[in-house]
Amino acid sequence: MSNKLLVLQSDFGLVDGAVSAMIGVALQEDPTLVVHNLTHDITPFNIFEGSYRLFQTVNYWPEETTFVSVVDPGVGSKRKSVVALTENNQYIVTPDNGTLSYIKKHIGIKAIRGISEVENRRKNTELSYTFHGRDVYAFTGAKLASGHISFEEVGPELSVEEIVELPVVETQISEDDVRGSIDILDVRFGSLWTSITREEFYSLKPEFGDRFEVTIFNNDMLVYQNQVTYGKSFADVRIGQPILYINSLYRVGLAINQGTFAKAYNVGVGSNWHIEIKVIK
Amino acid sequence: MSNKLLVLQSDFGLVDGAVSAMIGVALQEDPTLVVHNLTHDITPFNIFEGSYRLFQTVNYWPEETTFVSVVDPGVGSKRKSVVALTENNQYIVTPDNGTLSYIKKHIGIKAIRGISEVENRRKNTELSYTFHGRDVYAFTGAKLASGHISFEEVGPELSVEEIVELPVVETQISEDDVRGSIDILDVRFGSLWTSITREEFYSLKPEFGDRFEVTIFNNDMLVYQNQVTYGKSFADVRIGQPILYINSLYRVGLAINQGTFAKAYNVGVGSNWHIEIKVIK
Amino acid sequence: MSNKLLVLQSDFGLVDGAVSAMIGVALQEDPTLVVHNLTHDITPFNIFEGSYRLFQTVNYWPEETTFVSVVDPGVGSKRKSVVALTENNQYIVTPDNGTLSYIKKHIGIKAIRGISEVENRRKNTELSYTFHGRDVYAFTGAKLASGHISFEEVGPELSVEEIVELPVVETQISEDDVRGSIDILDVRFGSLWTSITREEFYSLKPEFGDRFEVTIFNNDMLVYQNQVTYGKSFADVRIGQPILYINSLYRVGLAINQGTFAKAYNVGVGSNWHIEIKVIK
Repeated sequence: MSNKLLVLQSDFGLVDGAVSAMIGVALQEDPTLVVHNLTHDITPFNIFEGSYRLFQTVNYWPEETTFVSVVDPGVGSKRKSVVALTENNQYIVTPDNGTLSYIKKHIGIKAIRGISEVENRRKNTELSYTFHGRDVYAFTGAKLASGHISFEEVGPELSVEEIVELPVVETQISEDDVRGSIDILDVRFGSLWTSITREEFYSLKPEFGDRFEVTIFNNDMLVYQNQVTYGKSFADVRIGQPILYINSLYRVGLAINQGTFAKAYNVGVGSNWHIEIKVIK
Repeated sequence: MSNKLLVLQSDFGLVDGAVSAMIGVALQEDPTLVVHNLTHDITPFNIFEGSYRLFQTVNYWPEETTFVSVVDPGVGSKRKSVVALTENNQYIVTPDNGTLSYIKKHIGIKAIRGISEVENRRKNTELSYTFHGRDVYAFTGAKLASGHISFEEVGPELSVEEIVELPVVETQISEDDVRGSIDILDVRFGSLWTSITREEFYSLKPEFGDRFEVTIFNNDMLVYQNQVTYGKSFADVRIGQPILYINSLYRVGLAINQGTFAKAYNVGVGSNWHIEIKVIK
Repeated sequence: MSNKLLVLQSDFGLVDGAVSAMIGVALQEDPTLVVHNLTHDITPFNIFEGSYRLFQTVNYWPEETTFVSVVDPGVGSKRKSVVALTENNQYIVTPDNGTLSYIKKHIGIKAIRGISEVENRRKNTELSYTFHGRDVYAFTGAKLASGHISFEEVGPELSVEEIVELPVVETQISEDDVRGSIDILDVRFGSLWTSITREEFYSLKPEFGDRFEVTIFNNDMLVYQNQVTYGKSFADVRIGQPILYINSLYRVGLAINQGTFAKAYNVGVGSNWHIEIKVIK
């Protein structure tokens, strides 16, 4: 199983030569590979973000696509290097450090294998131990994407149950409110993407045009509280007005039409950023 | 007509997964498409910039290339989604919000069709209305670029005369000066690109080495006034000196050799930034 | 000799349409070319950085790949435009302004030819002299990468000895220390990459876990002095601790585990930034 598509993600940025070296290594393995970038601007060492960006995109790529994700604060430690085979029939090559959390929870992992560095490490790189993105991950990803090795040849099978997972905030639902966290930003526009799914929010039976009381806490500190309209899209409110909406991943988003919600109210992301959406009676 | 080349532009940035989702959607439609990025760093909601960057680049791409440009402050409003067939025999898939202004004026549009969202919207995206870049524009662009639909199958023909156009500043020419506006920056180097074409400027019969009085106003406020040499290229003046030159689009540019004109004098862009180039007697 | 792979580097950034115009020009020459970016975020006019990034990456690309590198503060001056054929059997198309320094020193150049602008300049660009990246370099690179011209058809042979070279700091080795300079940053992580090779450093007979006294001067001013552990990889020291290591180019690096050394101590790069690594007795 391989479709020659290789998609790379990292926290390396595009300013120096690191990503280009990874792409070159892949094309040395097979010059007919088609290589694309997911993003290389993951916040350095932010495994959660890497996990989320995979979750956000893999469903939109063809079956059999191979993804390489390298956000690896523990390079050189005992963390494992693995390949996951997803329920979507795609491969994800990555350190086992939490990067697979969202994929496991929302898409599903069929099987996982540890990368055997004896077989699947680039030759003549044994004197440097810092660039596994190039020497292990891109290299193994290229071997899979080209069909030069099978999933079985990656290395020994590991237990899907035992992969490293980041803690996930579960949505709390009551009769007149739902509570979750601010997972991540729609970076360019500063909109908040919450952990609350459309289905969970719909327990409140919202209709387009309804208003809800939205409260945001950073731990216990109140950061934002206002009545916000639920709309189909940004243009349903006037420019500069806040809006609750269902984002492109079917989760509740919070934005300012043509503004930047995160900057306007200094809202951050992560499990200590709580959001409550409450019916107004 | 289709050459399998798909070129994407947006104001989404490359930091999150939005552009990757668009590329994936295109490759799900046809894995043999060759997808390139124009830029995704258009200033958010800046339709003028999106329009200019298309004008700046489409001539350098092969005939039959399909461009997708998504700068869409009105997503979810009644603005139309269209495909333009240009005089160059290229397609441009975009919201009809002014993005086509420069293409219509300087390249020409043969025909335009509205995107039928019943036929040409990605299936199973009906519960989210915010990411037309992925669900409508990239999807329709991929169908055209792959030849899976013809231009006629995009949707109903619309009137080229009725597309939305941004106001354009016309150059004023007198015996001893030309007047226009600062359209845009050569961003990385901070050079000013004016609306004055080479042909218009040549009404002043300039020779390389001639000096002109250059004046810049922000509305009525004087921002810059100096004598500037007209040269072939930056190296015709000393480092740190200003220079008038013909840019790569055959328009008058104003730069500092190895410096940043826009930052040096706090010059901005747009129709309220006027420039006058006057013969020195 | 050509493998259809074309890799572009410049200081143009990706914000405007410049790079897209270069890619388009290449695909007009041959739509089957596979075009990748090395980086376009070279610091404007920084020839040293351009030279280093080529050195950092070309070895990881297939033989016969064609690279185009445009960091060209002297555009429009008498500097030559050339193509180098490397000992790796790759082409590098670039202004002869020092960009080839690292390639010549560390990889080797077999032959060099001047680009004949009569034959190998894009037609109908004679009225603008500022965008050689598009009209000369990308165009010539595409002709080579596609096999439409041979190396001999580029233009007249020039002397490899006479190409412009940047000064290089030679490592000084004594019984108990090695001295070199800070060449460049691993930008995203702020790690220092020195000019001292693994082999030179090993004259001190280091073992993993040994500590060395590391001193950094900016010219004669002391900037940093501390005892630092030599490790295999970042995880060999605690988070926040400094580490000496061998980087992915087999040179000595200096980092803070999960920190940013360059920012922490305001360290810059270039031949006036000296580093000394001394045995502790």
